[in-house]
Amino acid sequence: MYAITVPSPGGPEAMQWSEVPDPAPGTGEVLIDVVASAVNRADIMQREGSYPPPPGASPYLGLECSGRIGALGEGVAAWTVGDEVCALLAGGGYAEQVAVPVAQVMPVPRGVSLVDAAGLPEVACTVWSNVFMAARLHPGEVFLVHGGSSGIGTMAIQLAARHGATVCCTAGSAAKLERCRELGADVVVNYRDDDFVARVSEATDGHGADVILDSIGAAYLGRNVETLAMDGRLVVIGMQRGRIGELDLGALLAKRASVSAAGLRARPADQKAEIVAAVVGNVWPAIESGDVQVVVDHRVPMQRAADAHRAVEASGHIGKVLLTR
Amino acid sequence: MYAITVPSPGGPEAMQWSEVPDPAPGTGEVLIDVVASAVNRADIMQREGSYPPPPGASPYLGLECSGRIGALGEGVAAWTVGDEVCALLAGGGYAEQVAVPVAQVMPVPRGVSLVDAAGLPEVACTVWSNVFMAARLHPGEVFLVHGGSSGIGTMAIQLAARHGATVCCTAGSAAKLERCRELGADVVVNYRDDDFVARVSEATDGHGADVILDSIGAAYLGRNVETLAMDGRLVVIGMQRGRIGELDLGALLAKRASVSAAGLRARPADQKAEIVAAVVGNVWPAIESGDVQVVVDHRVPMQRAADAHRAVEASGHIGKVLLTR
Repeated sequence: MYAITVPSPGGPEAMQWSEVPDPAPGTGEVLIDVVASAVNRADIMQREGSYPPPPGASPYLGLECSGRIGALGEGVAAWTVGDEVCALLAGGGYAEQVAVPVAQVMPVPRGVSLVDAAGLPEVACTVWSNVFMAARLHPGEVFLVHGGSSGIGTMAIQLAARHGATVCCTAGSAAKLERCRELGADVVVNYRDDDFVARVSEATDGHGADVILDSIGAAYLGRNVETLAMDGRLVVIGMQRGRIGELDLGALLAKRASVSAAGLRARPADQKAEIVAAVVGNVWPAIESGDVQVVVDHRVPMQRAADAHRAVEASGHIGKVLLTR
Repeated sequence: MYAITVPSPGGPEAMQWSEVPDPAPGTGEVLIDVVASAVNRADIMQREGSYPPPPGASPYLGLECSGRIGALGEGVAAWTVGDEVCALLAGGGYAEQVAVPVAQVMPVPRGVSLVDAAGLPEVACTVWSNVFMAARLHPGEVFLVHGGSSGIGTMAIQLAARHGATVCCTAGSAAKLERCRELGADVVVNYRDDDFVARVSEATDGHGADVILDSIGAAYLGRNVETLAMDGRLVVIGMQRGRIGELDLGALLAKRASVSAAGLRARPADQKAEIVAAVVGNVWPAIESGDVQVVVDHRVPMQRAADAHRAVEASGHIGKVLLTR
């Protein structure tokens, strides 16, 4: 088969559409004939050489895909060859085929095209596991997500709003903020010329945010803690602006607050299976009812993955950038 | 009545045994005729002027006491005048009488003297709420507590060991470490001449600590995160060595770990009630069966609270220092 490979780490041009050995599904796995994949920031880090795949994972880029079941590994009875699915991957989505544990395979929600379903697994699993399973966002609470117009942001806004939370977000342009409002954000803050700490405090009568989903990292750590409400939970899922920050334990203690950080990719199989099952049970119905949309910015043929990476690095997009075959 | 007052913040000598207005139990409160109280580090901070009582709390020192029910406020049917009890207080334990919400009053566990029961509420509620309710320590996990010979430490070691955890602790002398071992610690580390990161890693074959209970704060933040196992939980309950520390979000993310911080004193009444009920249901049986002891270092008459504070500040004690009437 063909896959995007990165013979030596570097910029977008380091990616090549190359012939590689065909994957085979192991016990408990299925083989998916990939129809589409999607770009995640982690792919860019892997391309640059700073985010190696976990042990046992495919060496190729791509943390999610959609496609059709092409073959069943031993012990798999849940799917039939030809079924349309999407899947959470530890790697290997930028390829014609990928083998994946059956517990990470999901049906395509009704009303979503097979191509667009490629943009669902990472954002749905990340938001559900962090905001709802780990941080236990409750109806009536205040939720803040940074990068509201990102794939993660667009999913987080919609799910939190549907859950009955007051939703705040940051983004970097008027057009992005407008889209966040359409998706359900109550409070939108342009981080380029405004202070989210003050805006969230004002908009919530000084209450602050009960749950914050952050992919900025160190540069926002202090201000995020400042923004937390009593019993608040800060969940860090990315470090776009630094990994080592100052933590004011006194402020954390006074608020009985917590800072946690988690990724999906390196989780053991049982945790991934639990998350995927919860997503199919909780997020898929919200999509099928029309309450939650898959926000796709644009689609790029997989062989031109470099263009897609350039687009994501330029941060002009809203929602997901997909790679199609 | 008489109580210890602090007319102006300062050293131990700033405390005076003074005549003050009698407290009266409000609706849902009881009045306790105090038999004993106990010293907590928070009392020292309050004496120094750096830890003011929360709104509505007694202005006097003392976060716990034992004694006899002296009067019932309106709507209280659970106790009878004369009953022997201990209680978690937001303040006012260093006094002849104190009024306290009934949900913070506990029976004296069978086998514990009325005086020694004064040393139970803070340690039992702190350890149970943080280690078991918040951090959900599981049997078979590795638990690390700093200051293993403190009141909190001695309770944490015993409860974690009884729960089936591998228990590690730090302390500052051979005698303290020996006592920690007797109480159930599997791994003891003298922080003065040894490195707890290396010792815990060695003793657990590189696994690290699933749950850490820390009262040191900033000075240990980096090393605590380093010591955490995958999915580990660091719970900070004190800041004896600094409040602002460097947090490596990358390390936290790689471990899917969390840092939380919490105190008891400022919690709303419903949270305190939930914790107290859980302690009576879970910790009291462990004490009554003899599995868990109340570790008391020595007892000082309440009028000589200054001596008790000097002893706690010198850190030579093991377990609690009580104030008796």
